[in-house]
Amino acid sequence: MKALPVRADFSGLRDFIATAFRRLGMPDADAITVAALMAEADLQGSDGHGVIRLPQYARRIRAGGLNLHPAIRVLQERPGMALLDGDNGMGHLVMARAAALAIAKARVAGVAWVGSRMSNHAGPASLYARMPLAHDMIGMYFAVGNANHLPPWGGLDMLLSTNPIAVAIPASKEAPVVLDMATTVAAYGKVKAKAQRGEMMPEGWMIDRAGRPLTDPRRADEGFLLPIGGYKGYGLALIVGLLAGTLNGAAMGKDVIDFNHDDTSATNTGQAIVAIDLAAFGDIQAFKDRVDGLIGDLRGSHRMPNVERIWLPGEQSNAKRIEYLHDGIPIPPGLQQNLERLADDLGIARLACGASSN
Amino acid sequence: MKALPVRADFSGLRDFIATAFRRLGMPDADAITVAALMAEADLQGSDGHGVIRLPQYARRIRAGGLNLHPAIRVLQERPGMALLDGDNGMGHLVMARAAALAIAKARVAGVAWVGSRMSNHAGPASLYARMPLAHDMIGMYFAVGNANHLPPWGGLDMLLSTNPIAVAIPASKEAPVVLDMATTVAAYGKVKAKAQRGEMMPEGWMIDRAGRPLTDPRRADEGFLLPIGGYKGYGLALIVGLLAGTLNGAAMGKDVIDFNHDDTSATNTGQAIVAIDLAAFGDIQAFKDRVDGLIGDLRGSHRMPNVERIWLPGEQSNAKRIEYLHDGIPIPPGLQQNLERLADDLGIARLACGASSN
Repeated sequence: MKALPVRADFSGLRDFIATAFRRLGMPDADAITVAALMAEADLQGSDGHGVIRLPQYARRIRAGGLNLHPAIRVLQERPGMALLDGDNGMGHLVMARAAALAIAKARVAGVAWVGSRMSNHAGPASLYARMPLAHDMIGMYFAVGNANHLPPWGGLDMLLSTNPIAVAIPASKEAPVVLDMATTVAAYGKVKAKAQRGEMMPEGWMIDRAGRPLTDPRRADEGFLLPIGGYKGYGLALIVGLLAGTLNGAAMGKDVIDFNHDDTSATNTGQAIVAIDLAAFGDIQAFKDRVDGLIGDLRGSHRMPNVERIWLPGEQSNAKRIEYLHDGIPIPPGLQQNLERLADDLGIARLACGASSN
Repeated sequence: MKALPVRADFSGLRDFIATAFRRLGMPDADAITVAALMAEADLQGSDGHGVIRLPQYARRIRAGGLNLHPAIRVLQERPGMALLDGDNGMGHLVMARAAALAIAKARVAGVAWVGSRMSNHAGPASLYARMPLAHDMIGMYFAVGNANHLPPWGGLDMLLSTNPIAVAIPASKEAPVVLDMATTVAAYGKVKAKAQRGEMMPEGWMIDRAGRPLTDPRRADEGFLLPIGGYKGYGLALIVGLLAGTLNGAAMGKDVIDFNHDDTSATNTGQAIVAIDLAAFGDIQAFKDRVDGLIGDLRGSHRMPNVERIWLPGEQSNAKRIEYLHDGIPIPPGLQQNLERLADDLGIARLACGASSN
């Protein structure tokens, strides 16, 4: 019988992360902000972007690769846009600031776009695309990934990352529609997860340098990720990189730092968030009702053989939010060990975990 | 020996289309605007969206399905956005107006988003994404397609269209990067082209209602298009539809009119165009130089076996613009016959074509 992962309370996980960051020297308010966003990533099932990253962030902080006292500032500003310099602070802080600014500007301008340079990895794209939702706004988020795993179409040099796109759209009675996708068939985190579990990858995730399917995740270094839709996904990854990176004066192409193998160089990460105020376009409730109607039509579609239900983007992570808030967030054994090691190392209390209820 | 298609001059093609529209009752200035955009579509090789559509537009105008004297007006407006009512006019007119407004607003707000409702098919997405380029701006364009060929992932009901995305980004010495893509593996026009040429489709373009590959384009009605990246492309098509359709109060989902089979109902097409002023983000020339550098790196990448060159998005259509402006635009025999029939029917001079030079 396979052991079930233990589970941690959302608030317990958040407080554990915050304590770790405080011990690493991060100011209290910032530690709480970053910890809440990281725990929220785990809460919605984005487990490749939550507490799993804590040991890596700790390593980078100790190596001096992250600025714990960043002066995040507005470099450029117009009624419908701003460009932030993150001063090499945690990406979560830069993006929380960017989202707040985009929301405030969209309230007046109707639509606002806020880009960043000198930021860092900020966790799952959907966290930030979701921020405008509570203000009856649509959110969009683009980012340059922090490691290049994708060559141009037909090429071998890994000049592009999995550059994600996220869009969150409010509904009324239904949960919001939240798309959060890498522009590659599989995110690189999924490859790492397959390797950890000793499983093979399906064909279509990666190819080797001769163009042959690569299915052994332990050989991932010998090949690269495939973009969605072939040259289309290459085009999308490039465009996202130009909008989130090049436009902001952030790293893109060969300037991207692989933050898995370099703990000291500033990543100069670029991101962009867009807020669209529903009120600017017309009646808010009428819009939400239209979204509800569309969701109902899609969910009620006749189904292909052996398909049990039609999912809307974000519906599964929304179900996880509800389940994990109630039952706790699963912490797999390997992760638990890593976090225990980190806690002991920092001299803080270990994360309190309980047995899984199912 | 296969006969080479004849070729038409860009200006000759534009004037032929304008004459046809005038004869159909369109005001002179509007006929010239629409004709220039349609001929430009052919000039850049978007031959599924140029003069090939003229007989269909003519049919719809005669059936009373298009308003030849639209009062295109601003319904909602803020510094960074506007919502246009196209009054069921030609989509080209609505989108040319939308682009001009987005550019004017972006000059002040930095970024501006203009949506439309009660618009119509406007030709290739890239035409409008390109419009901000001459103003040192990035352009983005989203649209709801005018026929549903895509079900939700796992479903059978065709509730989504190929909803395209286009983004155009200025460079300096290099041609601009212009991505223009349907969110399906193949656009439906490519399926129709395969059928006309009597060719089979590759696996991956379409599946039948049991989920099996569908490769005979004559059986296209028995199946549906596949989205890029599986559920990711479904998510993208949905999001584009929500942003370009639902947000604007335009048709989306089951309300979309199939304009191939219905010439009279207003399509209530929704589109959106975004303009991003480079000057708002920093030095324009420095940005363009960074884009040039990135293009050079991508093009100079080592290549996979048997790959002759790395292409940038938009590079092939840019090469066609140059070639076709010099050598003329190819007019395939079937299209030429259709245009001759239309010209005779309208009592206007036929399109002047010359022999192909290669």
